Amino acid sequence: MRIAIASDHAAFELKAELRDWLMEEGHEVADLGPDTPDSVDYPDFGYRLANVIADGTAQRGIALCGSGLGISMSVNRHPALRCALVSEPLSARLAREHNDANCLAIGARLTGTDMAKACVAAFLATEFAAGRHQRRVDKLSDPQIEDRS
Amino acid sequence: MRIAIASDHAAFELKAELRDWLMEEGHEVADLGPDTPDSVDYPDFGYRLANVIADGTAQRGIALCGSGLGISMSVNRHPALRCALVSEPLSARLAREHNDANCLAIGARLTGTDMAKACVAAFLATEFAAGRHQRRVDKLSDPQIEDRS
Repeated sequence: MRIAIASDHAAFELKAELRDWLMEEGHEVADLGPDTPDSVDYPDFGYRLANVIADGTAQRGIALCGSGLGISMSVNRHPALRCALVSEPLSARLAREHNDANCLAIGARLTGTDMAKACVAAFLATEFAAGRHQRRVDKLSDPQIEDRS
Repeated sequence: MRIAIASDHAAFELKAELRDWLMEEGHEVADLGPDTPDSVDYPDFGYRLANVIADGTAQRGIALCGSGLGISMSVNRHPALRCALVSEPLSARLAREHNDANCLAIGARLTGTDMAKACVAAFLATEFAAGRHQRRVDKLSDPQIEDRS
């Protein structure tokens, strides 16, 4: 299972820390940037991450910004992505069990490094429960929204 | 400013509590359902809420489900919506300041009623900071995603 990771400048250090830790744990990790801590726009990296998951290049994504809010909004623009913004492992587990989340978002300025690792570990270790949740997840792939720009 | 609120069954009671509290506080609130605590699918109510904000019927949304994850994913399918899943007021404030969030999501099984009210209060009281954040928010309205289904 290939993991792609992306961030903005506010989460540049957390991205490096999680990337190196995941590789030490034996995972294959694609770092989608940024490659420097210079200021960037989180949607650029959120869309890049979403496209890489949607086309099958990676199976799981980790999306980081200062609060986790902006980058998770951008990832969830893609109907094939289910990005869960979390700050503790229970939500990370529920995101997999109930929502079949394929991307995890964390706010680097709000969640500490060890807590972030605990979230990622729960996210990677948990299977989707399917059952009654499958129909709801299917509806996330087929947005019933009007006035789409 | 009109506020629309929607949930799934897991957040039916929190929806009623927040709706009544907001009305007591003098806000105009549209309850988009569900109207009973019977099991429903969160995306149905998330899309309903997104469409009502996008068409200008309401200016702010409150989206509730068990974890807040599923309904926030569905709301964020709409490029005109910026839905912030939060569990404490700092994130609710940042969501307005940095992301111009027009919808707040809360997990009824994870966040207590008083904390939920504190999040909603921070969300409603905070203005968007614009400046460097404007360009990023604009990019959320124009998703650069491929293979859109």
